[in-house]
Amino acid sequence: MSTFDLIGFDADDTLWHSEVYFQRAHAEFEAIVGRYIDLQDARVHDELLAVERRNIKLFGYGAKGMCLSMIETAVALTDERISGADVHRLVQLGKDVLAHPVDLLPGIAEALDAAATMAPLLLITKGDLFHQESKIAVSGLQSLFPRIEIVSEKDQAAYARVLRECEVRPARFVMVGNSLRSDIEPVLALGGAGVHMPYHVTWALENEHEVDETHVRLRVAASPRDIPAALRSLAAA
Amino acid sequence: MSTFDLIGFDADDTLWHSEVYFQRAHAEFEAIVGRYIDLQDARVHDELLAVERRNIKLFGYGAKGMCLSMIETAVALTDERISGADVHRLVQLGKDVLAHPVDLLPGIAEALDAAATMAPLLLITKGDLFHQESKIAVSGLQSLFPRIEIVSEKDQAAYARVLRECEVRPARFVMVGNSLRSDIEPVLALGGAGVHMPYHVTWALENEHEVDETHVRLRVAASPRDIPAALRSLAAA
Repeated sequence: MSTFDLIGFDADDTLWHSEVYFQRAHAEFEAIVGRYIDLQDARVHDELLAVERRNIKLFGYGAKGMCLSMIETAVALTDERISGADVHRLVQLGKDVLAHPVDLLPGIAEALDAAATMAPLLLITKGDLFHQESKIAVSGLQSLFPRIEIVSEKDQAAYARVLRECEVRPARFVMVGNSLRSDIEPVLALGGAGVHMPYHVTWALENEHEVDETHVRLRVAASPRDIPAALRSLAAA
Repeated sequence: MSTFDLIGFDADDTLWHSEVYFQRAHAEFEAIVGRYIDLQDARVHDELLAVERRNIKLFGYGAKGMCLSMIETAVALTDERISGADVHRLVQLGKDVLAHPVDLLPGIAEALDAAATMAPLLLITKGDLFHQESKIAVSGLQSLFPRIEIVSEKDQAAYARVLRECEVRPARFVMVGNSLRSDIEPVLALGGAGVHMPYHVTWALENEHEVDETHVRLRVAASPRDIPAALRSLAAA
């Protein structure tokens, strides 16, 4: 089993639950804004997404940027009528996401142990540096990863830089993650392989990709327990 | 000149102006809150600092956390009377800081060129990953630094990790920066050297340190033009 020199793992929604907490905050955001405007016109979700998309160039990813975008959206959608108390509730939604418990996906620790027998593991995640470090620290998984990279965007350039620094050729790298856009597409484009493990919810902006899900260097794992077999299948191909 | 194997530089207020933009935002924050309460009681600044200090464990450093703390403080100080329009203004203050121009300190490019003839340079900065990367990219200085580290806290552990990864002994490392707390104290404690270049304004939380400014491995540079001489003086000592 020497096909891979490095096995990369995404963190949020691959090692532990994350998007569910963001989506819970979104639902509470809609409930708060719904006290001011008729939710039937269904603009709330679209408007928040548009504001987040516009702000991502300034804010990057993560809960603090989401929270600021929620506040901006709420002020606009309510025609500035939102109360101070509700603004405070929106700040608290952001804090709740930043303080969410780190619940590992069932079976992920065993999957990491199995993967570590095949090649060294790399944790590569994007988003808020401080929040990601906090979650890694409390996850108990830190010691499994000889190298941890927190980047602002998981694009081809970021993967190319990390692989260069690790002195690993892309053809000998496989990435495991839930996002086709951030975990799979850039790695396949570089010539690496991917194991896609879908999470049951996905942030809208992560759905923007052009991955051919029948790609020869791509496998799908329905759960962490399927990751080792997926890695072996790629190695055998 | 082989005394140092690595010369570290801080970024904000060492390479380019930063704190002035945060302080400008603070002044505008006080003006906005001043429309609701009597500023004479002077609680505004202290209250914001207390909220920032409390939130730093969740937010880390940077403009987004500052902006959320401002909003939280404004809601509290105005007894929830702050208007949606003013909340929007507070969000914009955070965006303005994130979009501030990257103005290099006069003479810093020449100082970096001179330092680079003595040892490889390391850029080590803390705060918002996305914002720091953006500023580094537009600064035009990126190519001067073989290694760039963006960390969530510049403490002894962070410096020790980076030096270990660079395979540099602390005794052969010198750090140049404006913050005694983040740039000088942890490096001296590890056995390294420091060049302190004070900036004309300092965030209150950065003033918490116990550096003896007559330390034998510490020099003071009044401006970037004094950095090369300070490095030479340390090397000769």
